Parts: sequence; structure tokens; C-alpha cells
Amino acid sequence: MTEILRPDAEEMDAADPLAGYRDQFVIDDDTLVYLDGNSLGRLPKATQSLVIDVLTHQWGSRLIRSWGERWMDLPTRLGDLVATTMLGANPGEVVVCDTTTVSLYKALSAAIDARPGRRSVVIEEDNFPTDRYVLEGLARRNDLKIRWIKSRGADGLTSADLENVLDDSVAVVTLSHVDYRSSALLDMPGLTSLAHSAGALIVWDLCHSVGAVPIDLEGSAVDLAVGCTYKYLNAGPGAPAFGYVRAALQPELSQPIWGWWSRAEMFDMGPGYQAESGIRAWLTGTPGVLSLAAVEPGVRMLADAGLVAVRAKSVALTELAVRLYDEWLSAAGFSLCSPRDPERRGSHVTIGHPNAQQIVQRLLERGVVPDFRRPDGIRLGFAPLTTRYVDVYDGLQAMREAAADG
Amino acid sequence: MTEILRPDAEEMDAADPLAGYRDQFVIDDDTLVYLDGNSLGRLPKATQSLVIDVLTHQWGSRLIRSWGERWMDLPTRLGDLVATTMLGANPGEVVVCDTTTVSLYKALSAAIDARPGRRSVVIEEDNFPTDRYVLEGLARRNDLKIRWIKSRGADGLTSADLENVLDDSVAVVTLSHVDYRSSALLDMPGLTSLAHSAGALIVWDLCHSVGAVPIDLEGSAVDLAVGCTYKYLNAGPGAPAFGYVRAALQPELSQPIWGWWSRAEMFDMGPGYQAESGIRAWLTGTPGVLSLAAVEPGVRMLADAGLVAVRAKSVALTELAVRLYDEWLSAAGFSLCSPRDPERRGSHVTIGHPNAQQIVQRLLERGVVPDFRRPDGIRLGFAPLTTRYVDVYDGLQAMREAAADG
Repeated sequence: MTEILRPDAEEMDAADPLAGYRDQFVIDDDTLVYLDGNSLGRLPKATQSLVIDVLTHQWGSRLIRSWGERWMDLPTRLGDLVATTMLGANPGEVVVCDTTTVSLYKALSAAIDARPGRRSVVIEEDNFPTDRYVLEGLARRNDLKIRWIKSRGADGLTSADLENVLDDSVAVVTLSHVDYRSSALLDMPGLTSLAHSAGALIVWDLCHSVGAVPIDLEGSAVDLAVGCTYKYLNAGPGAPAFGYVRAALQPELSQPIWGWWSRAEMFDMGPGYQAESGIRAWLTGTPGVLSLAAVEPGVRMLADAGLVAVRAKSVALTELAVRLYDEWLSAAGFSLCSPRDPERRGSHVTIGHPNAQQIVQRLLERGVVPDFRRPDGIRLGFAPLTTRYVDVYDGLQAMREAAADG
Repeated sequence: MTEILRPDAEEMDAADPLAGYRDQFVIDDDTLVYLDGNSLGRLPKATQSLVIDVLTHQWGSRLIRSWGERWMDLPTRLGDLVATTMLGANPGEVVVCDTTTVSLYKALSAAIDARPGRRSVVIEEDNFPTDRYVLEGLARRNDLKIRWIKSRGADGLTSADLENVLDDSVAVVTLSHVDYRSSALLDMPGLTSLAHSAGALIVWDLCHSVGAVPIDLEGSAVDLAVGCTYKYLNAGPGAPAFGYVRAALQPELSQPIWGWWSRAEMFDMGPGYQAESGIRAWLTGTPGVLSLAAVEPGVRMLADAGLVAVRAKSVALTELAVRLYDEWLSAAGFSLCSPRDPERRGSHVTIGHPNAQQIVQRLLERGVVPDFRRPDGIRLGFAPLTTRYVDVYDGLQAMREAAADG
């Protein structure tokens, strides 16, 4: 294999069918190598215009009238959009409203309640902290035992790992589709089927896959799922999460936070809570409109680009990163903490180094923005609509130099 | 008493020491009579600039770096601001993060857990729907009985009403400081003391008082409180709520949604949840920054105006409304659904009419924006920084005309 040079990366950009999307984002410093779109996606120009319109016209001028005119159905209208374009789900199966943490709490609580008598729940040691903590809280309150799937490192858990902890005492299994550190991409239909064969419900966390990996919730027979909108969906800092509940399950599940937005005939404001039918039962209170409205443009852009094309570029970007790791970094004290098989990898790559924290600091000083993950991970996120092949090249070259400087 | 004429209202505006604040808001149609600032407050000019800066510079340019540079402490920094300027509370006692409904859920759940063995909870029939529904859900889950305080109509509940339902089986009392329909303003220190004398905790809902009525949570010995920021605090549609927990109680209370933001050393992301000490234990997940950042300018403006002056104008506005009701509406089929005594009234006045819904429709067509509250209430909200005395005059005159047209 010949050494890869910067002109090679430039050629890849020139041939990239998605390259034009970068112009649809606010990018005022073209020299910035932004490799953290999986933590906070860039600002679409359409979102900038939309939020200013929501602020100035919808709030400033129309005031309370905008609730009736446009805002009341935002959580379900955006839910339908995310469902049908990003999730392989149907209208009426998704809402966008609370934070990821609150959405996970609702989903896991409802799933636990739907399996009374089963005394355990399953989660990976490697799952994202908030998933683990929310489940710990619910397990404590419901007197359930947590069965931890041990960390499997870069490649993520296998079917056998899940099978080993499954039996008819398990109420709920919760897994991350793409691991936030390793980037391991799990087999959603296979693992869902395994959970079901034990009679358990499954809750998938899609935070690190939605918008970068095609997802088929219906085809995978998923029960519940939660995901965030501020990474690959580019909805902005802390933008609300989505929650998915399979239509067939909705009549038998009940979420725990009984707010006025989830009550039948909410403006009756009458005595006694009765949940609204369908997915509106998963709303809680008045959602933050500025953040919520910002969900739409990024999703529309990804839908326009097509997730198959997005995934193809994502794989090519991570493949380039792994190749440059092999050429430049593997012999320089770095280690690859992500799967080598692109079919088992999401849209980021984590590279370890004993001095990761200092290296990240040096990268930031050089205008390269990765993510540091304790204790020793340098996480490089590739957002197919905005990350260029030269960003991968320049980012990894900067890592080589930063390590050499140390 | 001589009839009041429009020039009288104009004179009141001319003499109003707070009149100048109106210029600090985005008001593109000066003829609009906006009497719904208690549902959605107007847009401050400073908020418009700030949100555009957050959007374009903080998100668009600084990207993920803004979390470290400015966003991580927003929930507690804004909490301290609201605590010290609006609530008579101390730094470290308030966070701003989730919706009002989720904040109520956390507060009520924690309070119930802190009184194990007590089998009942107390709430008014008149309380806002989401307060009632959240409590119903928690009562069902914890097998508690709800003791309902019967509706007391316009004047709100008395000490005797609360005393009648209190005994040592009551875990928690929850009350609204100002009733969302009647505007009845309750005796916070007296009722709090009563709840405490029965050994119960109290959770106050401040949604309809904060920013319009001076509040002294510390002086009233309040345990927990929740309130929204999109009414008199002008933070925008669905802006996040605040939650207050008295510092002395924080070590013994635990909120139920164990998210990564509430864990000690959150970026350790380590195994096992342990709550952060202090008020950060009441955070949950990543908050919506666009909506959260918008909390600051409105609060600063109210603090600058001073809540004593704000309250004085609020009383004068509601007094004018009641006087015009007496002159024009009382004999025209309307009824007053709010307290006559301004000391027992918040900053809105509700006026009933059998054809309220049609009258509200006609008012909207005439450029007067009130709120309709089923079945027959026309709610007129007066935001002292933006509502003019002529708005009160014109609004009530339009009501008289709208009823005469019918």
C-alpha cells in the first residue's frame, strides 16, 4: 500500500457526492478541523434563519398566538419527521420533547412496569453513564437486580454475551446502538430478537447512531428507543431528545411523569389524569420551543442526502482514519480503541494514548477539535455532511505531530 | 366615584416610573393590547441579541468549546441569579434545567420519599392540572391517598382549609402561590408553617407569582419550590423551569431521575451513581442551551426595576381592571372570578361570562389578546414591565363592546 498524501484526501473530497452540503452550514473558519460533530453538530444555515424567525416573528410578534398557530404539534410533527426519515419507524411512534436523560427514564420505567414479577434488568458496563445511572435509580426503586454485561472493549458485545445473562427473570434489556467511546455498532435486529426470546423488552439508545447509520426500528421489532438530536442531527446544544414507542405496544405501556401535555383533552384541564391515546401519552410539559424548532432543518438535510449515502461516506471517513492510524500512529504509542471492521463501527473512531489529555490540549491549540474521553481516549467524530477527508488527514497528522512534540 | 376616561389611563402611564422598560422589549405593533404576558411574556431586546449570539457565535463558531467556556454552569449560574433576585433564596439553592412538569415530578417525588410511612398527600382541586396529575401519578406509584382541598373559588384557600386536612399522616402539601385561574395569592409563610407543624414538607408552585410578586422563600421557611420562566420572567416559549431546594434539606433529599449531570464528578463517567453534593444533585441531563440562555435578560431587567416597584404597578393595573369591571362589566353579564382585595391577588384578573369563548374570539379579532380558560373564564394578565394602563382600559372597553355585540 502506497503512503497516502494530502492530495489523495483532496481528491476524495473532490469526488465526494455529499461535499456540497458543507456549504449549507455556518462555517466561519474553514481552517478549523472539527472532529466533534458527534458531540455537537454544526449549525445549519437554515437553522440559523429558522431560530431567528421563531425568536423574532413567532415569539416577538405573534406571541401566545403562535402556540395555536404552530407550536402545539411540534413534538409530534417533528417526531413523525424523525421517525419516517431517520428511524425506519411510522408516524405516531415518536415524540421530541424532553432531555435524553428524562426520555430514558420514561422509557425504562414504562418497560420495567410492563414486566411485573421479573426481578432483573440488563445493561452493559460500557453503556453511556446516564443510561447506567437512570437504570440504577429505577432498579433501586423497584428492587431489581442489575445484570451487568462486562466490557468487551473495542468490538462491543456479542450475541453470546447477551445470551449469557438472559433468562425469564429479565424484565428489560437496554443497549446503545453505537458505543459512545469505542464506536462499536451492535446488531440491532439480532439482539432485539434475543431479548424477546427471553420475554424481555428492549430499549435502544440511538444517540451515537441516529443520522449517521441507517436504522430500521420497525424491521428490527424494537420496543422502545431514545436518541438525541444535537449530534449528527445538528439541532444545537442540548436540543431535545426523541422517544420511540412501537405502536403496537403503546396501549400497554404507561410512562411515569403524568404531565398536562400527556393527558387526554389537555385543555379541559379537568380533574383526574387519563393518558392521551397514542404517542402523545409520552409528552410531559411545555417543551422549549427555541431548541425544539431547531430540530427540523438538520433532519431534512440528512433525509435529502439520504442515509445510504451518508453511511457510505461515514464508512469511508472512518476507514481513512484507521488507515492513517496504521501508517502514522500505531508505532507511536497510540492504540486503536474502535472496531477494525467498518460494518461493526459507527461514525467515530477512538484512539488511545497514555498522554491523551495533553495531546488533546495540543490539538486544540492547533485548531483541531477532538473529544477527550477519560482516562486515555481521543475520540474523533466524523459528521458526513460537514467533515472533509482533508479534515481526517489534517487531524491525524496533527495527532502524530502532537505526540512527537511530547 | 367619577367615571374613568381614557385620558386618565394615559396620565397613569405618563406618571408610571416603570414605563420606560417597555422600550427594552421587541414590540412591532404598538396597537396590540397584549394581556397574556402571564402565559408567554414578551421578547426583551437583550434576549433577542443574546440568543442570536448563542446561536451564531457560541454554537456556530465556538462549537463544542462553548460547553467548557460558558454553558456547563448555566443551570446553576442562572439558578443563583433567580434565587437571589426573584425568590429570596441563596446561591446554591436553585437550578434551572427541565420543564416545569419534570421539575415538579422531581420535587414531589423527593419530598414523598423523605417522609416514609406517611400515607397521604395534600393538594387543592384548583391547582394547575400538571401539579395535580404529577401528584396523582406519584400517589398511585407510592400507594398514597390524596386529600383534596375543595375549590374555594375566587378567594383561594384559607388556613382553616389546610388545617382541616392536616395530620401526622400527611407527607407532602403542594400549593400554588398564585392560582392560575382565580389569581388568588396565598399566605406563603403562614401555610408553610401550618404544613410544618404537622410534620409535612411543602412544595410551592411559583409559576404565576415569580417576577410579579415579591417572594421570600428563606423567610417563609419553604422546603421546595418550582416555577416557570416563560411568564413574567420573559424567557420565551417553553423556557426551562427552576427548582428550589432549601440548602439545609439538600443532604436528606434525593431526586428520582439519576442522570449524568447530577452525578458526582460527572466527567469521570465511572461506574455507580453517587449524587453530586448540593444543588447540582437536582440536574438531570444536558439542558437545551438556546432556551436556557434566554432566561437571563428578563430576570436582570426585573431585578433592575425592583420587585417592590413591579408589585406596586401590578396592584395598580389589577385595581384599574377591577374598577373598570365594576363600572362597565358587572351589570353586563360578567362576573369577577378574582379576589377583590389586592393583597390577596396576583398580577392577573379573571372575568367570567357565559359566552366567554366567543367573546375571546371577538377580542382577538380586535387586536386584544387575553386567555380563555374553560369553561367560562377570560383571563387578563398584566406584566408590569410591558403592560400599559391604556392597555387595561382598551382591553376592558373591548370586552364591553364584544359582549354588547353578542
